[in-house]
Amino acid sequence: MKIPVLEIFGPTIQGEGMVIGRKTMFIRTAGCDYSCSWCDSKFTWDGSEKSNIQLLEPEEIWEALTEEGGDRFGHVTISGGNPGLLAHLNELVKLLHEKNMNIALETQGSKWQPWFIDIDDLTLSPKPPSSGMQTNFEKLDQIIDRLRQDQNGTFSLKVVIFNEDDLTYAVNMHQRYPDVELFLQVGNDDLETMNNEKLLGHMLRNYEQLIDLVMESHVLKDVRVLPQLHTYLWGNKRGV
Amino acid sequence: MKIPVLEIFGPTIQGEGMVIGRKTMFIRTAGCDYSCSWCDSKFTWDGSEKSNIQLLEPEEIWEALTEEGGDRFGHVTISGGNPGLLAHLNELVKLLHEKNMNIALETQGSKWQPWFIDIDDLTLSPKPPSSGMQTNFEKLDQIIDRLRQDQNGTFSLKVVIFNEDDLTYAVNMHQRYPDVELFLQVGNDDLETMNNEKLLGHMLRNYEQLIDLVMESHVLKDVRVLPQLHTYLWGNKRGV
Repeated sequence: MKIPVLEIFGPTIQGEGMVIGRKTMFIRTAGCDYSCSWCDSKFTWDGSEKSNIQLLEPEEIWEALTEEGGDRFGHVTISGGNPGLLAHLNELVKLLHEKNMNIALETQGSKWQPWFIDIDDLTLSPKPPSSGMQTNFEKLDQIIDRLRQDQNGTFSLKVVIFNEDDLTYAVNMHQRYPDVELFLQVGNDDLETMNNEKLLGHMLRNYEQLIDLVMESHVLKDVRVLPQLHTYLWGNKRGV
Repeated sequence: MKIPVLEIFGPTIQGEGMVIGRKTMFIRTAGCDYSCSWCDSKFTWDGSEKSNIQLLEPEEIWEALTEEGGDRFGHVTISGGNPGLLAHLNELVKLLHEKNMNIALETQGSKWQPWFIDIDDLTLSPKPPSSGMQTNFEKLDQIIDRLRQDQNGTFSLKVVIFNEDDLTYAVNMHQRYPDVELFLQVGNDDLETMNNEKLLGHMLRNYEQLIDLVMESHVLKDVRVLPQLHTYLWGNKRGV
């Protein structure tokens, strides 16, 4: 079954979340059930790059990965869009495991897929109020319950923070799922600038502010607060 | 039994290694069996702050932690110096666990302690050639074998990289212990500057260079490459 792919690149580092710093290849799938106001990959769902979507068999994806990365990688990250929409992604997961790859995947957790349990590093990133999206907590509860029971790898929650409402949302998330590791990530609110130095200073100030708020919290004790390292290194550039 | 302590501070984020970003309190013990050329905490072993060393019972350390951090933390990081020199640190580990804390500890892995198996996030950071130190691999083998068998938490290796010899050392480390998660960390070679902006630019360039080298490697596939986030945020400032 063919998979809609917009980008394959790497190896590079994973710049964020539970395996931050990990040497990895990236596969970016097209299509999303959300349309977050601050999405940094709008091209995956806004139609602007519809003509660039490649429909690829798992074997073809593997060929593209090895063409880019040679034999210099052991980890593949599947991102989107929302790759959790693709019921038949299990075939790619199976193939990558046959090739001895570890697999990370990121999804907002709006839809369950049985193959989630085979993802080595699964990030659920429900979207906070600033996104303009609504979290279906009933569905998220179900997904997290199934992962608690069956997951073969590890999974975590990640919430991007742009403002205090988002932080309140993260607090609720932490109280709802206290046993699930929670990553708070500084939101990038300047996706347009090509002035990397300006962006870096701005993002570091935002990071420090978020740290200050979390350090004051009596509820957010067992959390991790992280930036997007790729933004520090390469600004808003794509494909790095 | 009293423990020699030089710093207690937090909560802040752990800026590096396996739990990068984690909200944590820091305890810095005095004393080290090494004298790394680029050590960023020389005051723990060079005698310059001998008069500031406090000899504290575990209960007194807990009091100091709560005085600083109130009830706003659930994680404590023990660093040094080399806290792995302190045979009786088991009492502090026990007390912190009774207080429902998670515990991280960093040691170069030059000496085994039975209480290592109770550390939740244990980092072994053997020192590469640029440090001027010699790794006792026989001892490190023994420590890693015991951790593989008995460790109740998780443990990882971390190597700080200043030059290509250090990277070769890391490659050997990865080949010797392929099953142990390996973190490569950018070395800070300007510990004196108080110009944070200059340091930031310099450290980001070093980080990008290290990433480039690791991405080209056919051996370093399953590694993580990370900066020291506290240096990006606060430069060479102590106690943050």
